[in-house]
Amino acid sequence: MVDAAIRSGTHERECVFEVFARHLPGGRRYGVVAGTGRLLDLIADFRFTDAELEWLRDNEIVDDKAIAWLADYRFTGNIWGYQEGELYFPGSPILVVDGTFAEAVLLETLALSVLNYDSAVASAAARMVSAASGRPLAEMGSRRTGERSAVAAARAAFIAGFGATSNLEAGRSWGIPTMGTAAHSFTLLHDTEEDAFRAQVAALGVGTTLLVDTYDVPAAVELAVRVAGTGLGAVRIDSGDLPEQVAAVRRQLDALGATKTRITVTNDLDEFTIAALRAAPVDSYGVGTSVVTGSGSPAAGMVYKLVARKGSDGEWLSVAKRSAHKATVGGRKFPVRELDEAGRATAEVIHVGEPEAATSRHRPLLVPLMNAGVPVERYRGAAGTALAREHRAAAMAELPADALRLGRGDPAVATRYE
Amino acid sequence: MVDAAIRSGTHERECVFEVFARHLPGGRRYGVVAGTGRLLDLIADFRFTDAELEWLRDNEIVDDKAIAWLADYRFTGNIWGYQEGELYFPGSPILVVDGTFAEAVLLETLALSVLNYDSAVASAAARMVSAASGRPLAEMGSRRTGERSAVAAARAAFIAGFGATSNLEAGRSWGIPTMGTAAHSFTLLHDTEEDAFRAQVAALGVGTTLLVDTYDVPAAVELAVRVAGTGLGAVRIDSGDLPEQVAAVRRQLDALGATKTRITVTNDLDEFTIAALRAAPVDSYGVGTSVVTGSGSPAAGMVYKLVARKGSDGEWLSVAKRSAHKATVGGRKFPVRELDEAGRATAEVIHVGEPEAATSRHRPLLVPLMNAGVPVERYRGAAGTALAREHRAAAMAELPADALRLGRGDPAVATRYE
Repeated sequence: MVDAAIRSGTHERECVFEVFARHLPGGRRYGVVAGTGRLLDLIADFRFTDAELEWLRDNEIVDDKAIAWLADYRFTGNIWGYQEGELYFPGSPILVVDGTFAEAVLLETLALSVLNYDSAVASAAARMVSAASGRPLAEMGSRRTGERSAVAAARAAFIAGFGATSNLEAGRSWGIPTMGTAAHSFTLLHDTEEDAFRAQVAALGVGTTLLVDTYDVPAAVELAVRVAGTGLGAVRIDSGDLPEQVAAVRRQLDALGATKTRITVTNDLDEFTIAALRAAPVDSYGVGTSVVTGSGSPAAGMVYKLVARKGSDGEWLSVAKRSAHKATVGGRKFPVRELDEAGRATAEVIHVGEPEAATSRHRPLLVPLMNAGVPVERYRGAAGTALAREHRAAAMAELPADALRLGRGDPAVATRYE
Repeated sequence: MVDAAIRSGTHERECVFEVFARHLPGGRRYGVVAGTGRLLDLIADFRFTDAELEWLRDNEIVDDKAIAWLADYRFTGNIWGYQEGELYFPGSPILVVDGTFAEAVLLETLALSVLNYDSAVASAAARMVSAASGRPLAEMGSRRTGERSAVAAARAAFIAGFGATSNLEAGRSWGIPTMGTAAHSFTLLHDTEEDAFRAQVAALGVGTTLLVDTYDVPAAVELAVRVAGTGLGAVRIDSGDLPEQVAAVRRQLDALGATKTRITVTNDLDEFTIAALRAAPVDSYGVGTSVVTGSGSPAAGMVYKLVARKGSDGEWLSVAKRSAHKATVGGRKFPVRELDEAGRATAEVIHVGEPEAATSRHRPLLVPLMNAGVPVERYRGAAGTALAREHRAAAMAELPADALRLGRGDPAVATRYE
């Protein structure tokens, strides 16, 4: 497209592209925007290396004029968007990219990859956080998603309210609290379960978490307290019928005097099994596969669409496609969240063409994210990630109470174009 | 675990870890191993940088002895596995890692991330290839998975039999044929659809594929043939009721004399919608979301388990956990595919402890992949990727005919331990 647009002389037309989802996946009631902070740095650093340009030339993918243009590429436009951690609904323009056609269209795949994956994880994770009713959750799913996506997933789950991750690189890159765990292999490595527990307590102290289901759970619980004492931090259960198992382990720990020892569970949990454990004496959850794969919806369904451009006369023009069931709404959008007197969200109002005058009942949703190709500092790095987590909590507090229901339903607030 | 094992003096015990899946996801009948060729290089290059070691030290994640050990880390063991492109069934030991506990346990997350994601994509893609009955498929889903996973997905889909990808980096890194497409934004950029078609034909020749559903399909088809002539390569349809739409477009193209112009369709396809188009005059398919997200099963469910280790007496010992519903089979495995006289697969036979004597009816499944930390050249890079694609075709030819049914069912061949 860039090649053909350069030849037709249209590549420098000023354009507005928007990222939005046509619907929320799987009958969910809200989505959580994530990936934005990560995307800003990826866009700022987006360049073509000599090796890449050479490959494009050798394989005649584009012509020499396009190669020369790509060699100088860097994004110089402006980007607005929903603050990371914000909720979204069908049609919410979560990212607005303003630049020439060629510089903006080139970002389509990168922007969608990041926002589709990270928002899918955050949207699933936020429901797990609600289902856990205040008990802490740790993300432990690195092994169930691509090796780089694992770091992004840990970050997205943290923004959605998870308390920690087992992914150390996410701790290093994004300042997310990390936690470790011992696998069954650590127990099997040692001559006896007792040797394994002693080795772990020697390295990590009695505050550590011992895995008690390698062989026989009651025997392991008894052994764990004998080795670490009643000050043992926690035991982890990774198999079996959890509500039953957890109650039995709690009774046993209490009988042994380890009344402060916590119980953490990790057996293929998702938002529904977490909710089913509400009445069980669980102290924390470790979640793997379901959170890093978006719990049934591994891509958020975001698309990147041209909504306005300047014509040959220099005037702005709204554009839209009319494809069956996939028509788009042309024109630059100015979304606000409409709130009632109690501060509860009642609608996603998307003004087309012009912003409306500000009122106390309408919270504007777009913030500037990149100015002339430079990311806004406040949304970057560990500080930006922590800010996104806070923003998500504040935005969720505006939701009507029944939005947190796990069952399928309509979006918690309706979208209205004005 | 590495830290605690170093302290307990067990970190250098020789160990055998295996990667396998407890079951095939979603009632599928076979799985396709992918990721192996990519994983070998990632393992060979796996090192800890100074910045990473410093972070581990500053955050007191592990002690100084473990930091020193990590600073010198490189994998020096041996790896065997199923050849990339091989089929797998429940329990198939698709990767066997032989090394000290510490050097082998450290690879767990990396090995599982790569194999779980890539095999999930390949397993879904292979069903789409069967459903397409010989018509070519292109992978176009980069925007619906993490930005690095996108490259891996293109590679895995190619191994499973897709013919091309829209991901240029996958072309550059792995030698996969690439193809491009014009988006609706390219049409909307131009003052008229005719300007857009003329620009595209000028850049890419009449053999290009014109997207005909931005406004009105019959008008666009008429325009496309008028602009490009009856030698137009193809038209693409990305919306609407495809079986109906495709037949109408075929009739129109034929009436216009464009009898050789192909029709490609791309509207949220998966293996089921592809099968539903068998009777329609489609020439090729472009598949996005469903292939890069494993069509409902985005992780292959592979686990990494310790199955044997040397004891303090230097003797090998089989080990296994006994957790409820998650028990493992201890001991080193030697899998073969049992074939009948016609060369059809009849069972996955896993010999535990000792290999069996070779026979013509038993195809051994393990090949050496890494020797003393060095990857076997034959499975690397573009050549290894092409080889994996060929191997997948040969392995699928051994399947009983009803294994290709799309409906849910038991594994196409049963697993037997001997």
